[in-house]
Amino acid sequence: MVDVPRYWYNIVADLPVPLPPLLDPLEDEDSRIALLVKILPSRLIDEEYTLSRLIPIPERVREAYRKAGRPTPLIRAEGLEKAIGVHGRARIYYKYEGVLPTGSHKLNTAVPQVYYALLDGAEEVATETGAGQWGLAVSMAAAMLGLKATVFMTRSSYEKKKPRRIAMQALGATVHPSPSTVTEAGRRALRERPDHPGSLGLAITEAIEYVLENPRRRYVAGSVLESVVTHQTVIGQELLQQLPEEPDYMIACVGGGSNMAGFTYPALGMRLRGEGFDKTQFIAAESTAAPRLSKGTYRYDGLDTGLVLPLARMYSLGKDYVPPPIHAAGLRYHGAAPSLSLLRKLGLVEAAAYSQEEVFEAARIFARAEAILPAPESTHAIKAAIDVARRAEPGSVIVFNLSGHGLMDIDAYEKISSRIVDGQVPEPANARR
Amino acid sequence: MVDVPRYWYNIVADLPVPLPPLLDPLEDEDSRIALLVKILPSRLIDEEYTLSRLIPIPERVREAYRKAGRPTPLIRAEGLEKAIGVHGRARIYYKYEGVLPTGSHKLNTAVPQVYYALLDGAEEVATETGAGQWGLAVSMAAAMLGLKATVFMTRSSYEKKKPRRIAMQALGATVHPSPSTVTEAGRRALRERPDHPGSLGLAITEAIEYVLENPRRRYVAGSVLESVVTHQTVIGQELLQQLPEEPDYMIACVGGGSNMAGFTYPALGMRLRGEGFDKTQFIAAESTAAPRLSKGTYRYDGLDTGLVLPLARMYSLGKDYVPPPIHAAGLRYHGAAPSLSLLRKLGLVEAAAYSQEEVFEAARIFARAEAILPAPESTHAIKAAIDVARRAEPGSVIVFNLSGHGLMDIDAYEKISSRIVDGQVPEPANARR
Repeated sequence: MVDVPRYWYNIVADLPVPLPPLLDPLEDEDSRIALLVKILPSRLIDEEYTLSRLIPIPERVREAYRKAGRPTPLIRAEGLEKAIGVHGRARIYYKYEGVLPTGSHKLNTAVPQVYYALLDGAEEVATETGAGQWGLAVSMAAAMLGLKATVFMTRSSYEKKKPRRIAMQALGATVHPSPSTVTEAGRRALRERPDHPGSLGLAITEAIEYVLENPRRRYVAGSVLESVVTHQTVIGQELLQQLPEEPDYMIACVGGGSNMAGFTYPALGMRLRGEGFDKTQFIAAESTAAPRLSKGTYRYDGLDTGLVLPLARMYSLGKDYVPPPIHAAGLRYHGAAPSLSLLRKLGLVEAAAYSQEEVFEAARIFARAEAILPAPESTHAIKAAIDVARRAEPGSVIVFNLSGHGLMDIDAYEKISSRIVDGQVPEPANARR
Repeated sequence: MVDVPRYWYNIVADLPVPLPPLLDPLEDEDSRIALLVKILPSRLIDEEYTLSRLIPIPERVREAYRKAGRPTPLIRAEGLEKAIGVHGRARIYYKYEGVLPTGSHKLNTAVPQVYYALLDGAEEVATETGAGQWGLAVSMAAAMLGLKATVFMTRSSYEKKKPRRIAMQALGATVHPSPSTVTEAGRRALRERPDHPGSLGLAITEAIEYVLENPRRRYVAGSVLESVVTHQTVIGQELLQQLPEEPDYMIACVGGGSNMAGFTYPALGMRLRGEGFDKTQFIAAESTAAPRLSKGTYRYDGLDTGLVLPLARMYSLGKDYVPPPIHAAGLRYHGAAPSLSLLRKLGLVEAAAYSQEEVFEAARIFARAEAILPAPESTHAIKAAIDVARRAEPGSVIVFNLSGHGLMDIDAYEKISSRIVDGQVPEPANARR
């Protein structure tokens, strides 16, 4: 029987070249790195810089993982194989993170970060959120471990993404629409523009200002940092115990990169150490709305629009890039985790970008075939898996990560269902191929 | 390690007096029982009348249960114990059915019923739904097993409960607002009243008319029938493997009764056979909006308003009883399963009714303490468990069933969160006690 792993895996220990470090902007006096050290839980900072290959998962975190439903299942997608006509020719599996009570993988790092804040003697954690997955995960982790949570939620999401906002509040979190009146940065933005819709950059600035006000508060981070990415490897560590055969393709969607990294790094590490997975292709599925791994450039760039955080060497579309609005809000980030970017640069990870139209078609096929409504972000991995399965050699094995369910993204599905009313179900566009 | 049980448990085999059978209305020519036999999957009819104690769970159903996340966890509620001040004095556990992908226990019977329809050579299942939990479970089971699903959803819910309706459609189900233009009964209702809001009784009538039109369709039933109740005992059968100690109290909420029955019957059966649980109190938590076990009378009454279905001997508030609207729509039924009603009559099951106000207060305490947002229906069991824990003897053990999560009932939580905005969290009303 698969158990919750004892260790996270830190790929930095196995990279063939050193990981370019986070940097402060060269021309500026204030150190963003010193700021990070000040606001993040101290054990997270230790993990951010460690070169150890295996990082012990604290027993209290393992317990919380178990309570939350880990290990998550690895499921053979026979329904999908049949629906797309590859049954008997390709085998498709997916790891399903949607069983977690927040409905996505974000809880995997929210729990240890909140626990580390507790170890620092903090009473409260604060963070920013866009669509709300990260804010909900932090709210739940805080409720599990008995800390207060304060979430700065971009105002447009605060108004439009009501289900997650209300869920956060019902779990006891304080949720401020950002810009808020709680911080100087928020008040300034509101003075300049009273109907300011908010931005993730501004919400980050507000959360950090709020944390700096009180030494018993800690900031928690949703993605991109190596330590955060490492927490997500609980997914891939479980997967190594579950895989019935070595896959030809491993696929996950990429926002900040923690989902893709968490899913693939334990296997990628074996590849880097010459212990297996040498024929596996690792594919990052992203959105054409923010195709940084497909079309971005590899360079030092700001982690956030406001340059409150340090610079990172990564594939980026530019910190000021404004992606078009898409339902998969989690995939709109301009950059990607430094380690994932480096692996892409080294040719160990491939990238493919998909439009909203084509991923929702894939979502519809998947929902009917597998009886799970996927999160808009996860649909990109499904689309990539379907494409690969259709063109793959006979006997190929494809494993993808289904990072979350879409039951709280019903507004996205409404667009589809408006075409599916009262029995007039259109044929899938691909059905005739 | 707990595995998915091999058998459902049929309490009819152990009842100390015979179960009063379903009856046709005495004064009427048409047999409702003959109708049931015609529209339900034939294996369900077999199970409805069997006297066998153990009913084998078909291997295909066990597989689907596993894929859906069974066995579901039994969780020690230490957070809740601390929050209500009974930690060290009472031990509280809950079985959590919300991990199922539909978010509630309803899938436990949807899967076997759809499978039995498949065994009959049917191509489609049809049913009615109010708030949508049952319709969503049927839609998902049909997607899992490759049948079509048609759901008649009361028009007021169709418009107000959008998340579940859209989820059903995304899973491939056809959802008609009832009254619909698809059946004669629906058309008649619309002629009489074009803005008819629908009723569960009318939706049942429509679903049955729709099934009768085509021999390759089967009707599937959400609760009350003994066979349906028996499917839910998968919960209690798992629980017997999981319980670390014999509880003093076992608590579940009651709508039609399948949730309470499924949770308690395997233990109640041991009590009836003199094999244990002789000091356990079994408590049915219901709503003051429909307190049939607390205030109803035990008699033969219609299962549905329209008398399309047979009569059953049960506790009832009268088939024409119209409960006030509450968020826990699943608890608004006027009656309760015949076996559960008989056990109540025999004094083996107790009942307690709670108002919407007090259960939401309990929900708020639970959400913050256990990091799970409960379904409005399940909050009644939480409230009962909290009350019992506060007044129980030191050392008492309380186990309740958390039948679902509330992530798709966010509209209900909005009422609470309107009192919890931007940091102004009111103290729980009970905090000062």
